[in-house]
Amino acid sequence: MKEQIQSINKKQEQRHKSDFGHLASQLAARGHAVEKTVAALASFQVAIPSWALGAGGTRFGRFGYGGEPSNLEEKIEDVGTVHALTGSAGAISLHIPWDIPGDAQEVKELAASKNIVFDAVNSNTFQDQPGQPVSYKFGSLCNESKAVRELAIEHNKEVVRIGEALGSKSITVWLADGSSFPGQASFRRSLAHTSASLKEIYADMPGDWSMFIEYKPYEPNFYHMVVQDWGTSFLLANECGERAYTLVDLGHHLPNTNIENIVATLMYKGKLGGFHFNDSKFGDDDLTVGCIKPYQLFLIFNELVFGMQNNTADNPPLAWMIDASHNLKDPMEDLMQSLDAILVAYAQALLIDQNELKAAQMEHDVTRCQEILQAAFRTDVRPLVREARRRSGAAISPISAYRQMGIREKLIAKRGENVQATGL
Amino acid sequence: MKEQIQSINKKQEQRHKSDFGHLASQLAARGHAVEKTVAALASFQVAIPSWALGAGGTRFGRFGYGGEPSNLEEKIEDVGTVHALTGSAGAISLHIPWDIPGDAQEVKELAASKNIVFDAVNSNTFQDQPGQPVSYKFGSLCNESKAVRELAIEHNKEVVRIGEALGSKSITVWLADGSSFPGQASFRRSLAHTSASLKEIYADMPGDWSMFIEYKPYEPNFYHMVVQDWGTSFLLANECGERAYTLVDLGHHLPNTNIENIVATLMYKGKLGGFHFNDSKFGDDDLTVGCIKPYQLFLIFNELVFGMQNNTADNPPLAWMIDASHNLKDPMEDLMQSLDAILVAYAQALLIDQNELKAAQMEHDVTRCQEILQAAFRTDVRPLVREARRRSGAAISPISAYRQMGIREKLIAKRGENVQATGL
Amino acid sequence: MKEQIQSINKKQEQRHKSDFGHLASQLAARGHAVEKTVAALASFQVAIPSWALGAGGTRFGRFGYGGEPSNLEEKIEDVGTVHALTGSAGAISLHIPWDIPGDAQEVKELAASKNIVFDAVNSNTFQDQPGQPVSYKFGSLCNESKAVRELAIEHNKEVVRIGEALGSKSITVWLADGSSFPGQASFRRSLAHTSASLKEIYADMPGDWSMFIEYKPYEPNFYHMVVQDWGTSFLLANECGERAYTLVDLGHHLPNTNIENIVATLMYKGKLGGFHFNDSKFGDDDLTVGCIKPYQLFLIFNELVFGMQNNTADNPPLAWMIDASHNLKDPMEDLMQSLDAILVAYAQALLIDQNELKAAQMEHDVTRCQEILQAAFRTDVRPLVREARRRSGAAISPISAYRQMGIREKLIAKRGENVQATGL
Amino acid sequence: MKEQIQSINKKQEQRHKSDFGHLASQLAARGHAVEKTVAALASFQVAIPSWALGAGGTRFGRFGYGGEPSNLEEKIEDVGTVHALTGSAGAISLHIPWDIPGDAQEVKELAASKNIVFDAVNSNTFQDQPGQPVSYKFGSLCNESKAVRELAIEHNKEVVRIGEALGSKSITVWLADGSSFPGQASFRRSLAHTSASLKEIYADMPGDWSMFIEYKPYEPNFYHMVVQDWGTSFLLANECGERAYTLVDLGHHLPNTNIENIVATLMYKGKLGGFHFNDSKFGDDDLTVGCIKPYQLFLIFNELVFGMQNNTADNPPLAWMIDASHNLKDPMEDLMQSLDAILVAYAQALLIDQNELKAAQMEHDVTRCQEILQAAFRTDVRPLVREARRRSGAAISPISAYRQMGIREKLIAKRGENVQATGL
Repeated sequence: MKEQIQSINKKQEQRHKSDFGHLASQLAARGHAVEKTVAALASFQVAIPSWALGAGGTRFGRFGYGGEPSNLEEKIEDVGTVHALTGSAGAISLHIPWDIPGDAQEVKELAASKNIVFDAVNSNTFQDQPGQPVSYKFGSLCNESKAVRELAIEHNKEVVRIGEALGSKSITVWLADGSSFPGQASFRRSLAHTSASLKEIYADMPGDWSMFIEYKPYEPNFYHMVVQDWGTSFLLANECGERAYTLVDLGHHLPNTNIENIVATLMYKGKLGGFHFNDSKFGDDDLTVGCIKPYQLFLIFNELVFGMQNNTADNPPLAWMIDASHNLKDPMEDLMQSLDAILVAYAQALLIDQNELKAAQMEHDVTRCQEILQAAFRTDVRPLVREARRRSGAAISPISAYRQMGIREKLIAKRGENVQATGL
Repeated sequence: MKEQIQSINKKQEQRHKSDFGHLASQLAARGHAVEKTVAALASFQVAIPSWALGAGGTRFGRFGYGGEPSNLEEKIEDVGTVHALTGSAGAISLHIPWDIPGDAQEVKELAASKNIVFDAVNSNTFQDQPGQPVSYKFGSLCNESKAVRELAIEHNKEVVRIGEALGSKSITVWLADGSSFPGQASFRRSLAHTSASLKEIYADMPGDWSMFIEYKPYEPNFYHMVVQDWGTSFLLANECGERAYTLVDLGHHLPNTNIENIVATLMYKGKLGGFHFNDSKFGDDDLTVGCIKPYQLFLIFNELVFGMQNNTADNPPLAWMIDASHNLKDPMEDLMQSLDAILVAYAQALLIDQNELKAAQMEHDVTRCQEILQAAFRTDVRPLVREARRRSGAAISPISAYRQMGIREKLIAKRGENVQATGL
Repeated sequence: MKEQIQSINKKQEQRHKSDFGHLASQLAARGHAVEKTVAALASFQVAIPSWALGAGGTRFGRFGYGGEPSNLEEKIEDVGTVHALTGSAGAISLHIPWDIPGDAQEVKELAASKNIVFDAVNSNTFQDQPGQPVSYKFGSLCNESKAVRELAIEHNKEVVRIGEALGSKSITVWLADGSSFPGQASFRRSLAHTSASLKEIYADMPGDWSMFIEYKPYEPNFYHMVVQDWGTSFLLANECGERAYTLVDLGHHLPNTNIENIVATLMYKGKLGGFHFNDSKFGDDDLTVGCIKPYQLFLIFNELVFGMQNNTADNPPLAWMIDASHNLKDPMEDLMQSLDAILVAYAQALLIDQNELKAAQMEHDVTRCQEILQAAFRTDVRPLVREARRRSGAAISPISAYRQMGIREKLIAKRGENVQATGL
Repeated sequence: MKEQIQSINKKQEQRHKSDFGHLASQLAARGHAVEKTVAALASFQVAIPSWALGAGGTRFGRFGYGGEPSNLEEKIEDVGTVHALTGSAGAISLHIPWDIPGDAQEVKELAASKNIVFDAVNSNTFQDQPGQPVSYKFGSLCNESKAVRELAIEHNKEVVRIGEALGSKSITVWLADGSSFPGQASFRRSLAHTSASLKEIYADMPGDWSMFIEYKPYEPNFYHMVVQDWGTSFLLANECGERAYTLVDLGHHLPNTNIENIVATLMYKGKLGGFHFNDSKFGDDDLTVGCIKPYQLFLIFNELVFGMQNNTADNPPLAWMIDASHNLKDPMEDLMQSLDAILVAYAQALLIDQNELKAAQMEHDVTRCQEILQAAFRTDVRPLVREARRRSGAAISPISAYRQMGIREKLIAKRGENVQATGL
């Protein structure tokens, strides 16, 4: 695959070099450290969740995609393909029980052969599994029934053990827990149970593990969610301990939320642990990153970059993951578009001269503040992203290469038209 | 069942009579025609969709309910039970192809034996059926492919034919058509194709049939919906002809929409054809009617009552249907709570003295306008609703009767714990 | 006035007694302690802000109302009138510098003569006052300029001193601080400055004072607000100290927020200090309490009642205030409608049998949970509210009495048609 | 001023030429007609409303800006300055009665001397003017009182007469009409009155005039607006006649509305008359164009460009106007940032190869559709915009030139620090 990519790159190199050269000299003239930026882009790695290689669906149905992977090994193979093409998908994030590895060592070796590491593991207590003794229908860690809570706690502990065997160092706990009807649940008891359950899971984690607590305002419960917002997640993380953090998923906010402010606040307090990328217009639409609100993504990256450069509260390195649902596009193409949008936003944010911005802010020169951000955003940074990929041995134009190489056609030939991935 | 209901009613009659008597005398003292109101409530009938008797789900999973019906006959049986208990569920609305009757005559007779008629039939072009030659993945009536459009048109025509055999007089067309990504579809071509397709279906309908065009702002498409709002539906209905109308589903609006204003406008123009009841806090949550925003429901009923009483534009009688998704409650209990909430809101709206309200409006006496509405809403109208049910031979307290009669337990015994209804 | 009220009450007493009697016997039959509920309603007092007696406006203009008060004394007089009529407006909440008392002792005595106490005082750093040395245009406690922050801190300290002289025991800090354009402000520095400023104000408060930190997602800044949500307020309150609390204003939330969950969480953690009542459909519309979403108000009261009855975290008694803007109605009528809606919701919440509800929740009997809440909400509790007012010597029907007594006409005769209250 | 601009341009020309040259050759290589695009950009003119040269405010207050214009002549002068610097503000849109010209001929000549024409005139029936016989407090064209409606109709007719004298050819009718409380107004009568009133104004217009009917979902009324959405505006425009059109204001939509779909639909039906530019995160925030959602602006321009190029329904040339409120920035700088954002979005939209896009849509190649749009959006088109300005004799970098020329300082010296513009 590497060689094919190189040979395809060859044809695009001349134009790319001209574009990159022009941009690099423009940026250098403005005092920007181009090489540093390209290096930062090349080293940025985003985890792919194990279920993201198959077609997703909505409650109204699912339209399959040919050549979907049917087991963990095939999923890792697909992440490997995306990583080979983009150079920025060097991690996989497992969902348990959808993707329990048979032989951990073999799976680890397979991943390593693709230069892929295991990022945060994800537990699942929003669905019942066949033969489950008690049901999560009315919640898991928050449930009024002790038996249900214990089942969910034990499941989370097991997820940590599975992750440990693979080299993961963190668990993401997303809870669908809540209620759909006023009166159905006690807000206080739900929260108290959840806090106690999380503490028990936390206490059982190895000492070098972190816990990420995800929040979401609604869906699949439509009246109340126990962890409805960052404030609740932050409160729970503080109650659990130092290695518990909040996880931000871009789609998990009420209309018009200023997410970048939340990101800034959490990093300022050293409590931002993970980040799930996607995009949306209405709710948790789980669309391709950057396809609806690329400027918001850029503004968030501005805070992430600033927070990483001004890490006064010892915020840990973030666990980045793409959390989109590939209902209409080829999942691998969708992921490559997402990765591209992430790097574009990151590159734009890196172009901001933070000192100049601070100076304008101190003077309340609002016009200039806006000019500074928009100048960065309007710059065509694609040559920087392409150069980063080129230097990593990945494809200058990943989707174009993917199509030229006929990867999907080969997968269909091998796996068939109608397989379905494990997962939702 | 009738007798069981009567015997249960007996025990509640004394308290009911005292409550009803007190309220009736209060209302009569204010000049309200109590008997007329009770009669209006008793005659109000709402259709139950054929898929509503089974447990629903979200894209994150589905939790089953014991004793679910597994075929059309059992669904009709369950609607019959709800109708016997409430006296207000005297119609069923079929979803095709989920519920194609084998022998139309037999099915009609079964329904008639339960005093149930067949209301609007619903087509489904948002899912592919096994063996379907072309896919609705990228839309149906709006599709760029003529073959897909023709398949969808033909399906709608067939739905009309099926409905005709059962005595239906209208078809509801809800289209999931749209796109999830900017650029994916041409708004104009999508709309043009949809208009042409609807006209073709319309032209094929029997002369006494009506078409209801439903709108929805998002889901399952998350960027654009071809029929995104009432304005688009209204435009399409006008293009189709006189017997094409807009259908309002309470959950199909953007946050904070003033739905009652839409209802008033459509009735004023004689173009409101159907109405789907449910409730929601966030999006198309499909919760029990009146469980989140009962005052909004009352305000809508105020417009419906006013519109029916001032039918200057020859608006047809509305096709009422409950369109909720019973994810957590026993579907029959959920439906009975919905029916109750509908009658409560209707009763409250009937208490408004429209002349008094108009007088206050003409004087811009805003305080009094609000007092008039809230006085109606704050009145405890449950005795009126109970009396209406009692006079129809239904249960004074349907859910309580349902539980006392052990209906669910009997269904589980008969149908089993793990059947699943056809449908979503 | 008292006598006039009594004489008007007389005429309504017979009907009221019949209604109250019927309801009381109904409730008693269900085991409800009616006398206790009436007593609770009679003792519930809500503060009226000093600026609420004049007509409000929008950015598009203001339409005056005749007879508006033009100074603090007249405002106290109007609150006195509302209190005499309703028995539930026994407190006033001053806005400084709009209503700086000339002679504190005289003002205190005037208020005492009307049975009115001074509740939380409110600072104002969202407007510049004539002759102000530096401007709040770009924020106050968050400002990049030390001089501005110091001015705002000193203003807040002065507000406390003014409040102390009047017997207030708390200050409400609402900050308009934020930015309207991406890049305009540093989220982190804004928050850090705000935290430091609040701590300084807190440290200067008398030992028996409390600080309430209000949050708001937008307006008058339209991109970012420093205290955008309860999470930020909670964080700041924790940083300030034990006597710093979060204040919830019903209109200060993003679309579809579950406010009752926030209320429950804050009381659970002992950090809910104040509550501003109003209602809204779109944003901070500042409409009459209960005029848009009465069921939400009831659900919130359910949490407040539960929280007060289960005060495990030593939450202080709440500071209740009406924060509406009287743009279209007579401000006093508007306030009386708000007070009525508050008592109605409170009464409904008091009808809930918390033990029965808990039992249903423990069994996951979702249908019954909903029945319990809706039974309380659908009960016509107006006789209880009227009885509470009657026993307090207030009017059974305050607005009707207000009109019969010709109060507005007398105020116009005395104060004129075109005065304007100090304030916005 | 022209010469100063040229001399400032000189210093930037070298770098600009290099950037423009590189981009032009890139685009030409892809087959794009660069010269045509630059010409289109140079000829694009946007009207500035007469009130936009002063500082705006919110209901919480207003912070002035030095050197604000205090009369119509000074406003025209300021528009002239913005036009000289940008080359794209060649029109002014008057608000009556804020800016009634004393001597129409003189005002026309003044404007002509600045190359400024008079675009759509705006009526104002949302405020009372001193001495007005009846009030608009409860609506204007919708009012229950005939006297009020007649006053409002006559005002609109007068606005047309004033516009005629200045060479305008259209009137924009924005109505604040509606209600803030359920029950306050009859939806149907409000709409009927509005329709009749608009027809009367329409009938009185000269035969070559157009009417633009603006819609808005809320504010300053917070429950119901008579013209709440495009559907209502479209209905009213159809009732008025051929020269009545809908006007879209970007800020006048509920959260998450797909505005570009509305734009496409209206152009498809030949009924889009005017367009008001601004940006917003929450409601009608009236922020600088493109400062929050530049991608949405681009998507809308994509529809506008497509609609103009495929004008099958004889849609008229659009009346473009900036409708922002300059609360925090120098109003002229704010306008220049808006104009820049508009041209950037227009240029990006012009880069889309519509044939290529259509081909990808026909094949349902969703990935490629997105690639096409994003490639256009990610292109740094600023050199094209600068070149268009340069060729028009305007400033390559307008804000930078404005600051170098010390225009604001000169205005303050001339007009003073504390003047306030007529208007809101």
